[in-house]
Amino acid sequence: MKQPLGEFDLIRRFFQRPVQRSPLGVGDDCALLAPRAGMQLAVSSDMLVQGRHFLPNVHPRLLGHKALAVNLSDLAACGAQPLAFTLALALPRADAPWCEAFSAGLLALADAHHCELVGGDTTQGPLNLCITVFGEVPSGQAILRNGAQVGDDLWVSGTLGDARLALDALLRQHALPAPVLAQARQRLEAPTPRVALGQALRGIASSAIDVSDGLLGDLGHILQASGVGASVDIRATRQLLHAGHHPLMSAMALSRLDACTLAGGDDYELCFTAPPEQRAAVEAAARATDTPVTRIGSIEAQHGLRVLGPDGRPLTQRWPGFDHFA
Amino acid sequence: MKQPLGEFDLIRRFFQRPVQRSPLGVGDDCALLAPRAGMQLAVSSDMLVQGRHFLPNVHPRLLGHKALAVNLSDLAACGAQPLAFTLALALPRADAPWCEAFSAGLLALADAHHCELVGGDTTQGPLNLCITVFGEVPSGQAILRNGAQVGDDLWVSGTLGDARLALDALLRQHALPAPVLAQARQRLEAPTPRVALGQALRGIASSAIDVSDGLLGDLGHILQASGVGASVDIRATRQLLHAGHHPLMSAMALSRLDACTLAGGDDYELCFTAPPEQRAAVEAAARATDTPVTRIGSIEAQHGLRVLGPDGRPLTQRWPGFDHFA
Repeated sequence: MKQPLGEFDLIRRFFQRPVQRSPLGVGDDCALLAPRAGMQLAVSSDMLVQGRHFLPNVHPRLLGHKALAVNLSDLAACGAQPLAFTLALALPRADAPWCEAFSAGLLALADAHHCELVGGDTTQGPLNLCITVFGEVPSGQAILRNGAQVGDDLWVSGTLGDARLALDALLRQHALPAPVLAQARQRLEAPTPRVALGQALRGIASSAIDVSDGLLGDLGHILQASGVGASVDIRATRQLLHAGHHPLMSAMALSRLDACTLAGGDDYELCFTAPPEQRAAVEAAARATDTPVTRIGSIEAQHGLRVLGPDGRPLTQRWPGFDHFA
Repeated sequence: MKQPLGEFDLIRRFFQRPVQRSPLGVGDDCALLAPRAGMQLAVSSDMLVQGRHFLPNVHPRLLGHKALAVNLSDLAACGAQPLAFTLALALPRADAPWCEAFSAGLLALADAHHCELVGGDTTQGPLNLCITVFGEVPSGQAILRNGAQVGDDLWVSGTLGDARLALDALLRQHALPAPVLAQARQRLEAPTPRVALGQALRGIASSAIDVSDGLLGDLGHILQASGVGASVDIRATRQLLHAGHHPLMSAMALSRLDACTLAGGDDYELCFTAPPEQRAAVEAAARATDTPVTRIGSIEAQHGLRVLGPDGRPLTQRWPGFDHFA
């Protein structure tokens, strides 16, 4: 008969690997990190809860990927290079196959970014994943939310809205053609943190944020921190929904697609600002990191956020910013 | 009518304060830390789950204290000086009075240790607290688990077992006289991390661990990491239960008290080893930091852990090490 797995067995089997760069990893009271001289340590912590951040039936391998991806996306938004992370994990029971798959997805993404697991905690409880990620950024060069200037261009990386389109289809709030759902679901379940682009934008972007709660809500944080306003051109954002280009999608109401793109959430793209004279530099950074970028508007002195319709005039419609308690 | 509080309101009202030492605190994608030259960063992460790490009816102010205390205790065990921490919090609902009390307990302990809250996450979900704490330690001077040497003395700080004695009384597994429960409950609900002692032991202790899962289980981690064995003198450990000295306690079976002291858990004391020639230095460190220490045994070449009875001969009784999935 198989012995039930204990806490320390779980850690040893699935989460303990020799460290490559950090002085001390999993297995002591603390891990030890040694940031290089002249570097600041960027730190971000995200907690993922079942039913709120992921569906109960998500594959644990994809969940492992996503749990780290959302944290790497925060490092990307600051222009930091990933270094290490800790994982705290509450599990209803010590489930070895689940842990094995989760760990495989988690560590594959970690390896791709040379970001090593150095410590954490495992306990019994309702499923909950909390990752704290560490990155290095040259002192004073982190890209913050408060640097947007009037006249700056407003940019977004990659695509927006497909994750929400898939989520709503999985929750049966609308139907999606199967090939469209399959593609959009990828974006929901296995987002790509824009780590290389974030670093390439250091010294070019004036501000940045990662789009996790929806474009307009997250852009609002930049505007508030920078004390400015912005206009967003809906003709540009409509190009950002990958599924929107699919011929089978013509039946869906444009307003629903706009809601996904502008306020969908779970995109993990970068929204950033840069002076117009940096356009060529932004495009060069995008090419160098193989990450598409799109100019979607501009920063203005007039406070507030305006979405301009196809005729260039502000739309009166409102889209909610995402709030975990709303 | 009062507006319901949102995620960002909660953070702003109860968890956002200007940083004193860190370059960037709450409110951006990442916080920024700047460890001083020659320092390594010690990192530890602990997740607290209701019903497993605290009782549902615990006062949120005490819970705030304890959530940080258990993390500071990990820094203490490495000899690190607290610097900053992140807090990820899942709450069933946005409960302002709860958050206010929790934050008061949390930040009072943080202030006492000059350890500032620099970031985190707030979300809706079953109550779960995950703190990641950061400390500084001069490069190469962290006290680890793997340094115990044959012949070393075995020491413990403070008192052991009172927290478990109180927990079992609150769970009605035994009765305690009211004044004894009141005192022991303090140790369960408001443990004292031995931060100053841990730092004072740098260069003196050969190994250390914080006693969170019970003395014997945690000591076992030192023995395993160091490849040694140990004997523990039960005459010494019986002095460590604070409640054991109370005249009203004479009715309780010694075996129950021993179980609390040796394998109780939730003590957050330091168990450490040091060469016998460092006895005076250990005692000086204890006096300088106003922290009692007790010599309870010694490190031996013979593998395994022996508890010696009052006659000096090994007891055959076994005490379990704590396992969150056991």
